[in-house]
Amino acid sequence: MADNFIGIDLGGTNIKIGCLSEDMKLLWKTSIPTDAHTGPDIVIDRMVDAIKETAGKKNTPLETIKAVGIGAPGPAKYSEGILIRCANLPKFTNVPISKMLRDKLGKPVILDNDANVACLGEFVAGTGKNIKNMVFFTLGTGIGSGIISDGKLLHGSGDNAAELGHTIVNVNGRLCSCGQRGCGEAYASASNTAKRATEAIEAGGKSSLETVLKKNGQITCKDVYDHLAKGDELAKKITDETAEVLAILCINALHCTEPEKIVFAGGMIAAGDILLDRIKYYFKQHIWKIKTEDTVEICFATVGEDAGIIGAAALAKEIP
Amino acid sequence: MADNFIGIDLGGTNIKIGCLSEDMKLLWKTSIPTDAHTGPDIVIDRMVDAIKETAGKKNTPLETIKAVGIGAPGPAKYSEGILIRCANLPKFTNVPISKMLRDKLGKPVILDNDANVACLGEFVAGTGKNIKNMVFFTLGTGIGSGIISDGKLLHGSGDNAAELGHTIVNVNGRLCSCGQRGCGEAYASASNTAKRATEAIEAGGKSSLETVLKKNGQITCKDVYDHLAKGDELAKKITDETAEVLAILCINALHCTEPEKIVFAGGMIAAGDILLDRIKYYFKQHIWKIKTEDTVEICFATVGEDAGIIGAAALAKEIP
Repeated sequence: MADNFIGIDLGGTNIKIGCLSEDMKLLWKTSIPTDAHTGPDIVIDRMVDAIKETAGKKNTPLETIKAVGIGAPGPAKYSEGILIRCANLPKFTNVPISKMLRDKLGKPVILDNDANVACLGEFVAGTGKNIKNMVFFTLGTGIGSGIISDGKLLHGSGDNAAELGHTIVNVNGRLCSCGQRGCGEAYASASNTAKRATEAIEAGGKSSLETVLKKNGQITCKDVYDHLAKGDELAKKITDETAEVLAILCINALHCTEPEKIVFAGGMIAAGDILLDRIKYYFKQHIWKIKTEDTVEICFATVGEDAGIIGAAALAKEIP
Repeated sequence: MADNFIGIDLGGTNIKIGCLSEDMKLLWKTSIPTDAHTGPDIVIDRMVDAIKETAGKKNTPLETIKAVGIGAPGPAKYSEGILIRCANLPKFTNVPISKMLRDKLGKPVILDNDANVACLGEFVAGTGKNIKNMVFFTLGTGIGSGIISDGKLLHGSGDNAAELGHTIVNVNGRLCSCGQRGCGEAYASASNTAKRATEAIEAGGKSSLETVLKKNGQITCKDVYDHLAKGDELAKKITDETAEVLAILCINALHCTEPEKIVFAGGMIAAGDILLDRIKYYFKQHIWKIKTEDTVEICFATVGEDAGIIGAAALAKEIP
């Protein structure tokens, strides 16, 4: 009988569940609302029901399921399978989610953070398919990241490696939500790109974004890129700074784990080539000149929203 | 018969050679002048003679030598065993040193860069002994570095990983000898610490170092720390900036590969606790506040000048 693997992407709004074959083909996927307010016991019970029900219907009976992987937001004790706390999942404090799922399903369960899992999904099923070293950034409210080194996720000594969004690119620079100053995330996440545009306008900067701010009470990152496309100068300045900081993160990643590819994912990549081309431009501007042998490829992710469930299933497959 | 391993530390002035037992005990060591101007053939012949002669005398006959490791300055194609070029070794251009040594000794030979090899030496015989994840910085003319991830040296896709001295801590900051702006090395290597002190004095700064500059025509990093100890204010400002940048490199290393220990080596650590304490101070000042679980230890290397030969022998032991 074939071995299949379940991948779970635990988000604040929805829980996405997928079943993958041993060669990482997506056999089926489903989604249920998280309803985190009902508490971990009820949420996990509904998760188990959804797995059992869909597996039965889709001709992948429970006996074919070898293991389960979960991607969830941190902080967590990933190697112990315990969620410590999470802004988007109230009532999920110190939840031994791996043990709870294992007890209810009778299968081995493995937990990792959502950025790592998405990175692994892109690595096994997307642009990382034929390489061994990759760095992955996901650009949203924050900047999540994952590192593949020699074919494996790099976890570090306490499961907190690959927080590259919180590496510092300007000593004593812009304050980050993490409490540090000068983090890459403080400049170049989608929300901080929008925030810098808002601040620039509030400081008197002229921009076509001003009307958006007045009308909606806020500016989104999408607004900034939309107005860049229309030729707005302030939008150009703001998005150039974003691209420059992302290029510095790429250079630092290259000098750290030397990946073959650096892959960007997340909502902000909807901006398209106008973003990617500027990252590449600033990378070329800032990279050292002593070794022209460096050939890292900077690109966008190709897997999309299924990266989380695919990566979680890939994680499950790695359970010895 | 016991298996022994030869470690070679190829420097511009001397070639250090050591023989280690399988459990990484140093059985003997010797040193010969490099005399790089005589060219690779003669240098390598003398290297082989020194190994054969000393091995014979010290009761570790050639039959007991299982493999040979070499640490050398880059750039090089390490995995192919070829030195590309090196400022300190004129005439060593595109030298297939691993093959040449293998042909002459009849043993497997492995090459890696000097910072990686020193890192591995500290990992197997020094403060890294009982951990699995370590980051290593050597503070000299430049800032060399090595990364141990999950018990192994991290090499990257093209043997150029772990160039942490050239990660950027200030976008568009101080010009580095590598051509980038704002590298950690541009501020915090021993030579750049001395250089910043010189520049500060030349810009009119008042300091007891002024007399040193007049007398010797230059200031060394040791001078700066000597005058710091005597209470010089400018020396304090300069060394504080060095420590602050080194602390940022530590924070970025923590957020990247999450080591248990970050170890400093190289000439500059002779400054002692006055340096280490300030690095720890700035680390605490700058590190994020959201995860107090982080417990990385920042410390000095303990192995000293034998780290290169020990690490090279450890590398040889890893040959499959």
